[in-house]
Amino acid sequence: MLTETGTGALTETPAATAVFTAVLTEGPLSRVSLARRLGLSSAAVTKAARPLIEMGYLQELAATERTGPGAGRPASPLAVQADREYFVGVKITGDELIGVVIDLCADVRASAHRPLTDPGVDAVLTELGHLVDDLLDGPGGYRPRTRRLGLAVSGDVDRATGLVRYSPFLQWHNVPLRERAAEVTGLTVTVENDVKALTTAEHWFGEGVGAESFALVTVGTGIGCGLVVNGRLVSGSHGVAGEIGHIGVDATGPECHCGGRGCVEAIAGTPAIVRQARQTSGRPDLTMDDAVALARAGDERIGAVFARGGEAIGLGIAAVANLVGPARIVVSGEGLAAYDLFERHIRTGFERQAFGAAVECPLSIRPLPFEQWARGAAAVSIQSLVAP
Amino acid sequence: MLTETGTGALTETPAATAVFTAVLTEGPLSRVSLARRLGLSSAAVTKAARPLIEMGYLQELAATERTGPGAGRPASPLAVQADREYFVGVKITGDELIGVVIDLCADVRASAHRPLTDPGVDAVLTELGHLVDDLLDGPGGYRPRTRRLGLAVSGDVDRATGLVRYSPFLQWHNVPLRERAAEVTGLTVTVENDVKALTTAEHWFGEGVGAESFALVTVGTGIGCGLVVNGRLVSGSHGVAGEIGHIGVDATGPECHCGGRGCVEAIAGTPAIVRQARQTSGRPDLTMDDAVALARAGDERIGAVFARGGEAIGLGIAAVANLVGPARIVVSGEGLAAYDLFERHIRTGFERQAFGAAVECPLSIRPLPFEQWARGAAAVSIQSLVAP
Repeated sequence: MLTETGTGALTETPAATAVFTAVLTEGPLSRVSLARRLGLSSAAVTKAARPLIEMGYLQELAATERTGPGAGRPASPLAVQADREYFVGVKITGDELIGVVIDLCADVRASAHRPLTDPGVDAVLTELGHLVDDLLDGPGGYRPRTRRLGLAVSGDVDRATGLVRYSPFLQWHNVPLRERAAEVTGLTVTVENDVKALTTAEHWFGEGVGAESFALVTVGTGIGCGLVVNGRLVSGSHGVAGEIGHIGVDATGPECHCGGRGCVEAIAGTPAIVRQARQTSGRPDLTMDDAVALARAGDERIGAVFARGGEAIGLGIAAVANLVGPARIVVSGEGLAAYDLFERHIRTGFERQAFGAAVECPLSIRPLPFEQWARGAAAVSIQSLVAP
Repeated sequence: MLTETGTGALTETPAATAVFTAVLTEGPLSRVSLARRLGLSSAAVTKAARPLIEMGYLQELAATERTGPGAGRPASPLAVQADREYFVGVKITGDELIGVVIDLCADVRASAHRPLTDPGVDAVLTELGHLVDDLLDGPGGYRPRTRRLGLAVSGDVDRATGLVRYSPFLQWHNVPLRERAAEVTGLTVTVENDVKALTTAEHWFGEGVGAESFALVTVGTGIGCGLVVNGRLVSGSHGVAGEIGHIGVDATGPECHCGGRGCVEAIAGTPAIVRQARQTSGRPDLTMDDAVALARAGDERIGAVFARGGEAIGLGIAAVANLVGPARIVVSGEGLAAYDLFERHIRTGFERQAFGAAVECPLSIRPLPFEQWARGAAAVSIQSLVAP
């Protein structure tokens, strides 16, 4: 049973928000180190932590750590009680729902998929209901301790209202997804753009922990970027941010569906790779899998298509590094199937165009299973425990 | 006489910092609206404001404003006491020092220039001493109420330590400018990169006031950009940020001194414009002024050089809008002498490459006198009154 009231956040004061966030993302932490890093008094930390301990979200670990030479009382670090609450996350794609259950430490406890034959809103919601039931009523017995569901959708999503303004692959326009999904599942729902959800997961529970700035670049059909600057996700004043795919890197390059020219996505997105591979091979039915197989088998002309794509991605990443100077950049994507074909060329483009010390920005290039996107959706719902 | 101790900031608590900053940048403000917008209690606002009123930095205006229907006591808005303290700002260029005195509202009260015949550190410091004396001991009588000096230098500047790591036009390497200037002038000195100083002035006292995000693009010999994201200036984790001039917008464009290709600066910076104008006219001695005059007189080939440059700037600005989505973007520069030749083409490039709603970002394109750079330097020294 959950003791806090309603569907609101657990934390009511700025100090409680700060303490809970720090322990969630960087714990276990002693009260002394919490006080130091948050600029609070020890009394304020204790006061902020007490209700979170009473509700079972935080726990005191055994007192093994001392705070320094000559320190009196040994410190009992505060840690998250991982199984206090579970969270469902679902990534909605055009042909599949991918779902996970995670605990408060964002560790995946269960996962399930359901194919979608119809991307219409009603059909997706019906399948979503089944998927959530599968996940929560399975052998893990997660149902009694689960009340939040995070959804991740590509496109233009308003997290504050839970409205999907436009999702190109689903062909959704102005869908009040938060309300509709809450009706179907009985859970408290958060809705976020998929790239932003993944960035949130990396910022709170992955490579971005503790970074004041951080970028996550996703490569696939579209090429997107989640940005954390000055400690917070960048949303864009006009609803647009992180559109690395539409930076123009080649003034004489191909036209893009967005109206621009030489966009990174028009050179390196999956449809662009397939189009170029078909042209160069003369095989109009070539698929992305075919192109990857041919390039891996040593086809030089198809290899050059991936090289050009990788380099364009690298130029886009250099633009991110030159403009906002993130502490680190992770490049990943829809499985990043062509990871091995892109990697060297991404680095070449980045290193050529990064300005001065920007080249020192560490670049992790790694595949990312679809389940991680669902985990990102669930991480956003963990975040909603914390007052804004 | 100044009553606060030492050279430190005036504000000692986060609440005092927040109150002073809000009144400086957006005042006059009543205590009620301060409390509301800062999330503080009225008592906390009153407590934070008291020492600032006692020291004469803030004043209570006459009680004309009522806080709402049925409100009891009329509110006395808090405002800055503009002439409580004056600040000197100096922009150091390769051939000139430009200095101003501003008041606490960042209004320019006096200005002066001194030519530099020698950009060596010792010669510049000697001239700086004379310039500060000219400004402070002139008819305004600013000396008794002035104790801070802000310096703005192009290049790689560490504001925290006041070290100029590298300034290309001055050919300075690792100059401890803050200490050296303090010795010469007897003032408390801040040193900042010139573009960042200008951005600070716009963010605190100009078009960027109240904006969570904001970009200032400067066009001249170099092309730079100051960025405010999530309410704070972007510094870059590896010491690089705002390098819009080194975004690659043309994969087959000219090589840049930075090692990149098709950089905005390699197409649109003053040396690039002059180089292209010389090539196209066949006149190896053509100057920037000549190129501007010819283009204004209708020379189509020289006009095309400016058109290409303006468009490249527009593509760089679109990259800023697509990535961080600022609330507004100001384009300005070293007088932006060629403003009329660039403007239309900047808009063309921006509008073509801005993604979706990013095109709604308001673009102000305007000239900016050199004095404004000096004002930016002084604005940074006002900022140093406020604890970080």
